Amino acid sequence: MSPLAPVCPLCAEDGGTVLWRNAQLRVIRVNDPDYPGFCRIVWQAHVREMSDLAPAERQQLMAAVFAVESVVRELFAPDKINLASFGNMVPHLHWHVIPRWRDDRHFPEPVWGQVQRPASPNRREIPDTVLGSALAAALGAPPQA
Amino acid sequence: MSPLAPVCPLCAEDGGTVLWRNAQLRVIRVNDPDYPGFCRIVWQAHVREMSDLAPAERQQLMAAVFAVESVVRELFAPDKINLASFGNMVPHLHWHVIPRWRDDRHFPEPVWGQVQRPASPNRREIPDTVLGSALAAALGAPPQA
Repeated sequence: MSPLAPVCPLCAEDGGTVLWRNAQLRVIRVNDPDYPGFCRIVWQAHVREMSDLAPAERQQLMAAVFAVESVVRELFAPDKINLASFGNMVPHLHWHVIPRWRDDRHFPEPVWGQVQRPASPNRREIPDTVLGSALAAALGAPPQA
Repeated sequence: MSPLAPVCPLCAEDGGTVLWRNAQLRVIRVNDPDYPGFCRIVWQAHVREMSDLAPAERQQLMAAVFAVESVVRELFAPDKINLASFGNMVPHLHWHVIPRWRDDRHFPEPVWGQVQRPASPNRREIPDTVLGSALAAALGAPPQA
């Protein structure tokens, strides 16, 4: 970005608790009690669209998204996984991996849709360290660990 | 699915105008005047999650998603592309590729979020035949053509 452009929040900050990272991407945990395994995979470079990446980079990013999906399914046992890359507010490539349950706040709407019920029951609590270890097993040890 | 399960609408019907298909997947156009290049990529087999596919199948599906993204960017010149795979209502793998404009009905919310303005201006009109030809150029000629 040019020095006069507004600072991109995903360039300036991690955007959440980092569970795994390498030079190309990072996996962060989203702090949302209704969706406890909600993770984002953020491409480290400021790139706008998937089709702006080289094919090998796309594959690398999607392999991480699907590895996170597998880990979240295994640890949180959701009824469904939702995947999305929007970037309307922050046009810096990032993927949402969201575990969904039939009785969660928005189901069957996307989590950006209308609230469907006042609250969701408590979900399985899994600490960052456990989720981080499962990600390291799926993605490989992070290079700086 | 078992004979007693409710019929899956994406197994029973195409789900829109088919622009391209092969044995593994089909690209359909979504009829939404606010989002004229809106396409869905539907996996032909009834599979629930990306992590239920074999790695080569995932790559094949995502390569189609990104090819559609490239074609939609080129033909419709949106400000942003939104990609999503939810399947909360129809748990049969399908990807949404949605062109977004800063002055569209929902921007910067996802199209499933709250309406932001009463209407959007008319967009570039591109017939199915033109969009289909561009997809065939990007994805290869469909096998049954």
